[in-house]
Amino acid sequence: MEKIKVGIVGGTGYTGVELLRLLARHPNAQLQVITSRGEAGLPVADMFPSLRGVVDLCFSDPTTVDLTQCDVVFFATPHGVAMAQAPSLIAAGVKVIDLAADFRLQDAAEFEKWYKLPHSCTDVLKRAVYGLPELYAADVQQAQVIGNPGCYPTTVLLGLAPLLEQGFIDFSVPIIADAKSGVSGAGRKAEVGTLFSESSDNLKAYGVAGHRHHPEILAQLKKLSANDAVNLIFVPHLIPMIRGMLTTLHVKLNAKGQQQRLQQLYEQRYAEAVFVDVMPAGALPETRSVRGANVLRLAIYPQAADYVTIIVVQDNLVKGASGQAVQNMNLMFNLAPDAGLQVLPLLP
Amino acid sequence: MEKIKVGIVGGTGYTGVELLRLLARHPNAQLQVITSRGEAGLPVADMFPSLRGVVDLCFSDPTTVDLTQCDVVFFATPHGVAMAQAPSLIAAGVKVIDLAADFRLQDAAEFEKWYKLPHSCTDVLKRAVYGLPELYAADVQQAQVIGNPGCYPTTVLLGLAPLLEQGFIDFSVPIIADAKSGVSGAGRKAEVGTLFSESSDNLKAYGVAGHRHHPEILAQLKKLSANDAVNLIFVPHLIPMIRGMLTTLHVKLNAKGQQQRLQQLYEQRYAEAVFVDVMPAGALPETRSVRGANVLRLAIYPQAADYVTIIVVQDNLVKGASGQAVQNMNLMFNLAPDAGLQVLPLLP
Amino acid sequence: MEKIKVGIVGGTGYTGVELLRLLARHPNAQLQVITSRGEAGLPVADMFPSLRGVVDLCFSDPTTVDLTQCDVVFFATPHGVAMAQAPSLIAAGVKVIDLAADFRLQDAAEFEKWYKLPHSCTDVLKRAVYGLPELYAADVQQAQVIGNPGCYPTTVLLGLAPLLEQGFIDFSVPIIADAKSGVSGAGRKAEVGTLFSESSDNLKAYGVAGHRHHPEILAQLKKLSANDAVNLIFVPHLIPMIRGMLTTLHVKLNAKGQQQRLQQLYEQRYAEAVFVDVMPAGALPETRSVRGANVLRLAIYPQAADYVTIIVVQDNLVKGASGQAVQNMNLMFNLAPDAGLQVLPLLP
Amino acid sequence: MEKIKVGIVGGTGYTGVELLRLLARHPNAQLQVITSRGEAGLPVADMFPSLRGVVDLCFSDPTTVDLTQCDVVFFATPHGVAMAQAPSLIAAGVKVIDLAADFRLQDAAEFEKWYKLPHSCTDVLKRAVYGLPELYAADVQQAQVIGNPGCYPTTVLLGLAPLLEQGFIDFSVPIIADAKSGVSGAGRKAEVGTLFSESSDNLKAYGVAGHRHHPEILAQLKKLSANDAVNLIFVPHLIPMIRGMLTTLHVKLNAKGQQQRLQQLYEQRYAEAVFVDVMPAGALPETRSVRGANVLRLAIYPQAADYVTIIVVQDNLVKGASGQAVQNMNLMFNLAPDAGLQVLPLLP
Repeated sequence: MEKIKVGIVGGTGYTGVELLRLLARHPNAQLQVITSRGEAGLPVADMFPSLRGVVDLCFSDPTTVDLTQCDVVFFATPHGVAMAQAPSLIAAGVKVIDLAADFRLQDAAEFEKWYKLPHSCTDVLKRAVYGLPELYAADVQQAQVIGNPGCYPTTVLLGLAPLLEQGFIDFSVPIIADAKSGVSGAGRKAEVGTLFSESSDNLKAYGVAGHRHHPEILAQLKKLSANDAVNLIFVPHLIPMIRGMLTTLHVKLNAKGQQQRLQQLYEQRYAEAVFVDVMPAGALPETRSVRGANVLRLAIYPQAADYVTIIVVQDNLVKGASGQAVQNMNLMFNLAPDAGLQVLPLLP
Repeated sequence: MEKIKVGIVGGTGYTGVELLRLLARHPNAQLQVITSRGEAGLPVADMFPSLRGVVDLCFSDPTTVDLTQCDVVFFATPHGVAMAQAPSLIAAGVKVIDLAADFRLQDAAEFEKWYKLPHSCTDVLKRAVYGLPELYAADVQQAQVIGNPGCYPTTVLLGLAPLLEQGFIDFSVPIIADAKSGVSGAGRKAEVGTLFSESSDNLKAYGVAGHRHHPEILAQLKKLSANDAVNLIFVPHLIPMIRGMLTTLHVKLNAKGQQQRLQQLYEQRYAEAVFVDVMPAGALPETRSVRGANVLRLAIYPQAADYVTIIVVQDNLVKGASGQAVQNMNLMFNLAPDAGLQVLPLLP
Repeated sequence: MEKIKVGIVGGTGYTGVELLRLLARHPNAQLQVITSRGEAGLPVADMFPSLRGVVDLCFSDPTTVDLTQCDVVFFATPHGVAMAQAPSLIAAGVKVIDLAADFRLQDAAEFEKWYKLPHSCTDVLKRAVYGLPELYAADVQQAQVIGNPGCYPTTVLLGLAPLLEQGFIDFSVPIIADAKSGVSGAGRKAEVGTLFSESSDNLKAYGVAGHRHHPEILAQLKKLSANDAVNLIFVPHLIPMIRGMLTTLHVKLNAKGQQQRLQQLYEQRYAEAVFVDVMPAGALPETRSVRGANVLRLAIYPQAADYVTIIVVQDNLVKGASGQAVQNMNLMFNLAPDAGLQVLPLLP
Repeated sequence: MEKIKVGIVGGTGYTGVELLRLLARHPNAQLQVITSRGEAGLPVADMFPSLRGVVDLCFSDPTTVDLTQCDVVFFATPHGVAMAQAPSLIAAGVKVIDLAADFRLQDAAEFEKWYKLPHSCTDVLKRAVYGLPELYAADVQQAQVIGNPGCYPTTVLLGLAPLLEQGFIDFSVPIIADAKSGVSGAGRKAEVGTLFSESSDNLKAYGVAGHRHHPEILAQLKKLSANDAVNLIFVPHLIPMIRGMLTTLHVKLNAKGQQQRLQQLYEQRYAEAVFVDVMPAGALPETRSVRGANVLRLAIYPQAADYVTIIVVQDNLVKGASGQAVQNMNLMFNLAPDAGLQVLPLLP
C-alpha cells in the first residue's frame, strides 16, 4: 500500500514533536512536510536532537510550501491558524486534523467568546467532527475535518461516557472535575510561569474562574446526556511533572444508576476500545503507567451518599493530543487502529 | 526568662528534623534531649548535615533517658508510642505534644478501627486537646496533652471553619475534599512506592477506599457544625514535590450561606490569625508561597449551582505538622504566638 | 523464522521491566518465562501496569521453573546469581546475558575484592565476553555468556575508544571521568537515600572513595590502550532525574593526538555504529535526547593545555543496561542490529 | 542603633526576592525602596506571595526614585546597570553592592570582551572590592563598592584558597572544575531552555566553549596563587533542581603539597569562617544541606597520582549571590557577621 503523505503545520511545539515521534515510525505514513514560521530552513533534528538520524526534513516556510500535495495535514498551531487554511485544503481534497480549538466547539459564538477570535469558516465547522474515536468512530471515519479534543475534555468525557450514555447521573448537583496536568500542557512557549524554578516543587490551581476547556466539556456533556441542564465545576491544577494528566471525577448517581454494577458497565462499554483500559476494582491508576503511550486508564470507586468517584489518567501529549490525532488519522484512512501507536509506556 | 526545656522522642523522621530546625532557633526553648531507638549515640548533625554547627546533641537511647527533666516533650514517632509514655510524663508534670494520631480521635473505638491498636490511655485521651490553635486556642492554652492535627485535616478544617461555624453549608450533598500532598507526607521510611524513580514525574491518587485522616476530619466537621449528618468524600493524591499540600474543597451553600459575602466572612474570621492568610478574591494560592513557613493560605471561588470552591495551601511539614506543634507549645507556655515561627517561605 | 525463546531471571527491578518493555515488542523474540523469588504467581502487569494488555505472563518461582527450554536467559539480578546458574544453562546450550557484574571483570580476584563474593565459575568467566558491541562485536557474536557492561563504563569506554585505540592519550596524567547518573541507577530497592524526599531537588557525589565501576573501567582502559600505567579519577554524582547519564571526560592528548582532527576521528570510528551518535562540533548533548532509547550521543571539545573534554550521554537503563543487553542478543542470534530497538526517545 | 536604610534596584529576579527574604528579617536593616522598571506601582507581595504580610513596599519607578536616601544600594540587575548608577550614588556617600558582573573583573578589557559592553566607570572599578569575605574581609570592610562574586567562582575559589594561598598546586596541568548548578542560576527570565518541560528530568553541560565565569575565576586564581601560568578547564552543567550548586575540583599537588595533611590545612584555614564548613574526611556534601542558607560546605578526597578532588556545595542564590551580598553589607557596616543570616537550611 502506498504510504499516506502527511504534512504538519507548526512543528516546533510539544504536540508537533510528538506527532513527529509517532509518525516517524508509522508503518503507513510518510512525513512529507513540516512548517514553522520562525524556523524555516532549520533541520528538524537540530531543534529536536532526539530525532537525529530519524527525521531528515527541514522546517519549511509556511508561506511558500504547497500543502495540497499531502493526503492529510495536522495543525499543531495556536488557535486560529487551522480555520484560516482549512478551506483551501479541503477544496483540494486534503483531510485536516486540528489539534487546536478551531473545530472543537460547534457553537461559533462560544468559540468567539472563549478564544477572542471570530470564526472564519463556520460552514467547515458545521461539518467538522469532534475527534474522540471511542465516542464518534463512525463520524471520524467519514470526516474530512477533525477537531481534535482538548486534553482535559478527553479525560472527563471518556471517564463519564458510560454513565452519560445510559442516563445514570443525577444532574441536580454539579459534576465535579478536579483535574491535574503536567506542565507540558502549557506548551513550549517562553513564559515565566512555567519556568523550572517557578513550577518545580510547587502546586497550584489555575483557571478556576474560567478555563477554555470548560465550554468544550460542557457542550459534550450536554450532547452525550441529551440534557441541557448539566452543571460542571472544573478546577485544573498544575503538577510538577512533564507529562501526564489525572482527572478525579465526582458524580452523583440517580436512582437507576445506583442499581448498576459500574465496574461491569465500564468494562463492557470499553471492551473493544484498544486504547482505554478499565482497571480492576480497587486499583489506583498512575500517570507514569501511560507515559508516552496512547492509553487512557481509569478506575471506579463507589462513595458514600450515592456518589461515585472516577479517576482517569492519560499522557496529555499522546492520548490527550498527538496520539489521539494519529488515532483519528488511522480511522479516516481505514488503517489498523493501532498503526504507529504500539509504543509502550516508559516506566520508570 | 528561663528557657523551656524541650525533649523530642523520635527525631529521625521528617517531623523530627523539622522540629529541630524550628526549635534550634526558638528564642524561648532549649533542646534538651532527642531520642532514637536506632541511632542512639549518633550526633544529630551526622544524620542531618543541615544542622552541623547548630545542633550539638547526640541521639539518646529512649530506654535510658529521663524525659521528666523536660518541660514539654514532642512525640515525632509512629502511632502508639506517645500513648505508652504519656501517662508517666503527665504524672511528672511534663506537657506532651503528639504529632502522631494517638490523641486526635476522641472516639477510642474509631482510633482502634483505623490504627489497629487498642488505645492504652483513654483517660488521658479524654483530657487531650485537638491542637488546632485557630479553632481551639483557649483549650490549647490549658492543655497538658495535645493531639497535633493531621496535615490533611488542618487544610480541610481551616478551609471550612468559617462556613461550619456559621452554619452556611448544605449538608444534603457531601463535602468533597480533593487533596494533594508532597511526598514528604509519607515520612522518611524506606519504601519502594516513595522512591524517587517511582514517585517523580508521576501522579496518583491513593487511599481512595479509606484514609486515616477521613475519620479525623469527619469527627471535627461534625463537632464544628454540630451536625452528625455530614458526608465527606476525601480523595488524597501524591504529588511529585517534597513539601506542600493543596486541598481543593467543594461545598454547597445553604440558603443562608448563599446570601453571604464569603470573602469578607473569611477575612473577618481570620483577621487575628497570624498564621492564616486569606488571599484577595481571584488570587491563586500556590504551595511554594508557604514552603518552609508556618502559614496556611486560602482563596475562595464562588461556583455555579450555589457551590463554592475553597483552595487551601500549607507546608505539610510545618503548618501541617511541626510548625503547628510549636505554635501549640507557644500557646501552652504563654509565649509570643510567632516565637520561633518567623522564618519566611523559601521561594523559589 | 521461529522466535527466540527468552527467559528473564529477576524481573522486578528496573532493568527487568526495561527488558520486558523492549522484548514485548521485539519482532524475533518471545518472552517465555520471567522469575521472581518474592513475587511468584503475581501477574507481571499487576506490578507494572504499563504492561497491562501487553505482557500476560505471571512471575514464576525460580526454584521450580525450567529455564533450559529457553534459547537465551537474561539475568537482571543482584550480583552472584548469574554465576550460580550459568554453568547448568550453558551445559544445556542456553545462552546467558548477565546484566550484573558476574562476568564483567576477567580478573576473579578483582571481582572478589569489589563484590565481596568468591567467583564460583572462573572457567565460564574465562570464556565470557564483555558485551560492548561497538568494541567487541565479533566476540559477542560467538559468545555463549555475556557480561553486560555497567552503565558508567559504557559511557567512559565508548567516549574514549577512538583515542585509546589510536594511542592518542597522554597517560602521564590521570583520565578524569566526572560522571552523573539519574536515580534509577540505584535500582528498585527500598532505601532511604533514594527516596523522593531525599534525592529530589538535591545533588551529591557518592562513591568517591571507591565505586565498583572503577575497576571495570580501568581494566578495559588498560586493555584498549594496551597500557598498564593508566590512571583514572572517577567521581560519580547522583542527579535528581529518573533516567539518564552524562559523563564528562577530561583527557590529555599526547603529541600524536594533538595533531588529529578529533571530530573527524570520532565520526569515522562510529560511522557504522547505529547506536552511537557523534554530534556536530559545538553541539551539547542532553540526556533527554536519548530518554528511553538505545542511543549513546557524544560531543568533543578541544580545551587549553592539549586537553580534550568529551561529553557522553545515554539512558542508563537502555544503552547502559537492558537495551545494550538486547543489542547483544541480536548479535548473538544474528538478527538485525536494531531489532526491537527502534523505539524513539521521549522528548519532552 | 538606627537601622541601615537599604535600597534594591531590580527586585523582580531571583537574587532580588532572595535579598528581600533575608533583609526583611535582618535586625539592623530597613528596606527603604525597591525598584523595577516593568512593575512600578505593584505591591511586592503581589508578585511574591511568600512575602505577603511581611514586605509592604511597592516597586518604585527607577527613573523617579531617589536612591541617595539609602545607606546602601544592592543592584540585582542585568550587567551594566550598576556601573551606570554607581558614580552618582558614590558621590552621595551611598555604598553599592552589585550582584551582577560590573565590578568583578578588574581588567576592563576582559569585562568588555565577555559582556559585550564598554565599561563606563573604570575609576570606580579600580576602587571596587571583590566581595568574597573569606578572602578579602579587610578590603570589604573599607569598600564603598563591592563586586559580589559569581556563584561558580565562589565555589571554586573557596574550594581552592587554602591550596592556592600556600602554593601547594602543581600548575603544569590544568585545574579542572566540573561544576553543576540548579536552574535558578539562569534567572527569572522567560526562556524556552529553562522551562520545566525542557530542563526537568534532564541533564546537560553548557557554556563549554566559554562561560563568563571562566575569566572571573581565572583572574582570581592568578591573584591568589601569584602565578600567571594557571590553566583552568571549567565545564558547567545544568541540574534539574531549583537551587544548589556543587563543584567538583580536580587539582594536582606539587611536591610540597603532597606532604601536607590537607584535611587539617582546610580546617585551620576556615576555623574562623562562620559560613564555611569543612566536613570530616570521607563525608559527602549534598546541596540540600545548605538549601536556603548562607553556608558553603566542602570535603577533600585524596586521589591517585598526587591528585586531590575537592567537592564544594552551596545554595547558588544565597552564599552564591544574595546571602553573600548581605554578608558583605554586614562587614561594610560593622554588624555581626551573621546578622540576618541565621536562617537554617531547609531539609528535606
